[in-house]
Amino acid sequence: MNSKVTPISGFPEWLPAQRIAEQHFLDTIREVFELHGFASVSTRSVEPVERLSNQGEDADKEIYAVSRLAGGDDAEARLGLHFDLTVPFARYTLENAGKLTFPFRRYQIQSCWRGERPQRGRYREFIQADIDIVDAGELPFHYEVELPLVVADAFSRLPVGPYKIQVNNRKICEGFYRGLGIEDVTGTLRTVDKLDKIGPDKVKALLQSAGLSQEQADQCLALAAIATPDSSFVDQVRALGVEHELLDEGLAQLKAIMDAAAEHAPGVLSAELKIARGLDYYTGTVYETVLNGHEDYGSICSGGRYDALASDGKRTYPGVGISIGVSRLLGLLIGEQGLTASRETPTAVLVAVNDDDSRAESMRIATALRARDVPTLVAPKAAKFGKQIQFADRRGIPFVWFPGSGTDGGDAVKDIRSGDQIDADRATWAPPTADLKAALVSPPTD
Amino acid sequence: MNSKVTPISGFPEWLPAQRIAEQHFLDTIREVFELHGFASVSTRSVEPVERLSNQGEDADKEIYAVSRLAGGDDAEARLGLHFDLTVPFARYTLENAGKLTFPFRRYQIQSCWRGERPQRGRYREFIQADIDIVDAGELPFHYEVELPLVVADAFSRLPVGPYKIQVNNRKICEGFYRGLGIEDVTGTLRTVDKLDKIGPDKVKALLQSAGLSQEQADQCLALAAIATPDSSFVDQVRALGVEHELLDEGLAQLKAIMDAAAEHAPGVLSAELKIARGLDYYTGTVYETVLNGHEDYGSICSGGRYDALASDGKRTYPGVGISIGVSRLLGLLIGEQGLTASRETPTAVLVAVNDDDSRAESMRIATALRARDVPTLVAPKAAKFGKQIQFADRRGIPFVWFPGSGTDGGDAVKDIRSGDQIDADRATWAPPTADLKAALVSPPTD
Repeated sequence: MNSKVTPISGFPEWLPAQRIAEQHFLDTIREVFELHGFASVSTRSVEPVERLSNQGEDADKEIYAVSRLAGGDDAEARLGLHFDLTVPFARYTLENAGKLTFPFRRYQIQSCWRGERPQRGRYREFIQADIDIVDAGELPFHYEVELPLVVADAFSRLPVGPYKIQVNNRKICEGFYRGLGIEDVTGTLRTVDKLDKIGPDKVKALLQSAGLSQEQADQCLALAAIATPDSSFVDQVRALGVEHELLDEGLAQLKAIMDAAAEHAPGVLSAELKIARGLDYYTGTVYETVLNGHEDYGSICSGGRYDALASDGKRTYPGVGISIGVSRLLGLLIGEQGLTASRETPTAVLVAVNDDDSRAESMRIATALRARDVPTLVAPKAAKFGKQIQFADRRGIPFVWFPGSGTDGGDAVKDIRSGDQIDADRATWAPPTADLKAALVSPPTD
Repeated sequence: MNSKVTPISGFPEWLPAQRIAEQHFLDTIREVFELHGFASVSTRSVEPVERLSNQGEDADKEIYAVSRLAGGDDAEARLGLHFDLTVPFARYTLENAGKLTFPFRRYQIQSCWRGERPQRGRYREFIQADIDIVDAGELPFHYEVELPLVVADAFSRLPVGPYKIQVNNRKICEGFYRGLGIEDVTGTLRTVDKLDKIGPDKVKALLQSAGLSQEQADQCLALAAIATPDSSFVDQVRALGVEHELLDEGLAQLKAIMDAAAEHAPGVLSAELKIARGLDYYTGTVYETVLNGHEDYGSICSGGRYDALASDGKRTYPGVGISIGVSRLLGLLIGEQGLTASRETPTAVLVAVNDDDSRAESMRIATALRARDVPTLVAPKAAKFGKQIQFADRRGIPFVWFPGSGTDGGDAVKDIRSGDQIDADRATWAPPTADLKAALVSPPTD
């Protein structure tokens, strides 16, 4: 195994301490998803290529095809790695519809693959953490209120820094456009979606060249400019004087979300009427999340309401989903900002070995500590104690246990950070809770 | 998303309750690995194809190649999905050697892919759970004692049924063969490895046609027939009258493992001198694990000592590793024996909704319970209580919370299994520990 080793662009990996930080994020996200009653689904990594390529736009450019290197005589479907967790979940829902209980709440935390050119925050292999609620036939609106609160709960337990879940409702845009007499709703939405990229002047020009009057274009821009941290967007929209039934419905729904957020996640949600989401299949609420001060890094958590996640001809499955881009988020926090863990191993205690004949005794001590859930390691060699302490220090292990070094031949344990050494009983001693697991450590900020 | 959905042979997936059982296994294995001081590594799913195909034997037949469906103008290395976790770990070790602290103890729980024909217990996508200890330069023997004890610790917390970790040492075979004057050690080992498949008579014939005398062949078979649950294999080998320095070393090492196992994992290890492991790179202890009564199902946990996991020309990294075939194990326990979870959701409590206007109040109750780590769900509709109880019952959720149904307008909670309903305070009530999480459930056996 001597050939040259180099990283592969777009396939990030972490060192052990960074990986502990990543695990902390994944564990916390999972824990919160489960607290909110979502069940885990893990799908295979591959889907038939035609199922992947069906999924609109230019997605097929990004698919990684998978084939047996040696070929083979069995006529297999062409397979590709999934590029998100929605396509496999839709297929899983159809495949198991008769065995699932609807409304079905599932979370799914897995790798996805896209063959596109790697960039900052965009990888070829990346972890997504999705929650979706789907039902057979109809899905009540209140789930659209619930989903961003789950994400806010997860982020409240993680050092993500200040962030904003931007929320809009497709019905507001569509109702508003229709109220203005605009017929090409989708085209208008697509053009307005370019606002952040090309600016209002160019958007206005595009809208007018698509046939909108100057007044219609101005009104579209005025709507998109509305952004409020509470329900006051309703009055601002009303002040534009446009009326439509769908607009009323959309405003009421977005207001319900902002009101619930004011109670359950104050300061986190923002009603931003410019948010459109590129994908066609959203029909109600849409979500996009930015880290404050890093808006250009892209959305780290997006989703929305769709009327047809899947359909088997007889039944249609509407749903609402939101997806945390874990790898993108950690690419910034770990990769750029230096977030890491307080040690590079789960080990809290190193049991020293007095001499080669007493390794068995050190193993017994380790067994006793592990039986009480203390991550413990036996030193590799019966070296001088200074060397064994150095072994622990290098890895960030906070405690070293010395068999027989206590008073009356009992054991002793040393906190190698402070140098404090105390007598300790292997059957009862445990490290302080804060030292039991590696902690997240942020680098000092200026 | 209407096209036909069918399972893909060799890519298993679980229903939600089964997935909870799988997660229980994965969580327990990880927890034990961390208690024993192993640090997590997660590698990318792909490696350059030439790195994968280098790995001996006919492994290249099994590789899944990965390529961008749309092709592209960038000259990329050809990539393949890893077929085990050893090859990527060896590459990771070389790539990060300057940043890792040796001896390095890592665990890795990830999917692997092999393009071979699916069979019972053999999948095209499957989860492995590996631990390895590698060092730069030299690796002490005592790690070979330690690794099977870690697996025994994990399995002691899981309903795997009776099993046996079969242990041997390559040095015993090689020393014994050399002591008999046999020169082709590897060839002899390979032939003896066929014992379970073709039986002793055919093995003997093969050995003799390879040039061994009848006495040599008989001695090889006599050695392979030795299997003891303790250290008594030593006397049985000695009784065969063969002498060699390497044999002495191998016997002493295997005895040390069996003696430690007698203390730390009594009844689990078996010294079986027929165990050879097909792969060339093992140089000391080798492990294979079978479920008693399901020996034909194949090994569910294998590994061994190797002198060169990797080498960068200057340094060589010896190691010892063992790998649990999680998907294979669960293919039997979940797939065939019907192991599952007590419910299909993490949810322990369903909060009923009295009427549409009081959903906000039910959400507040759910928030209070979740804040104390109780997985909680709010009912989807303000239906009749009977319907809401049915909603919980269908999913196996044990408790339903009724806002305002207690005495004096307080809340009440019902255990829907017993029907018992008591007054409850959202700020203090919690379900019994046994109900907090879904439990593993084995089907009744006859």
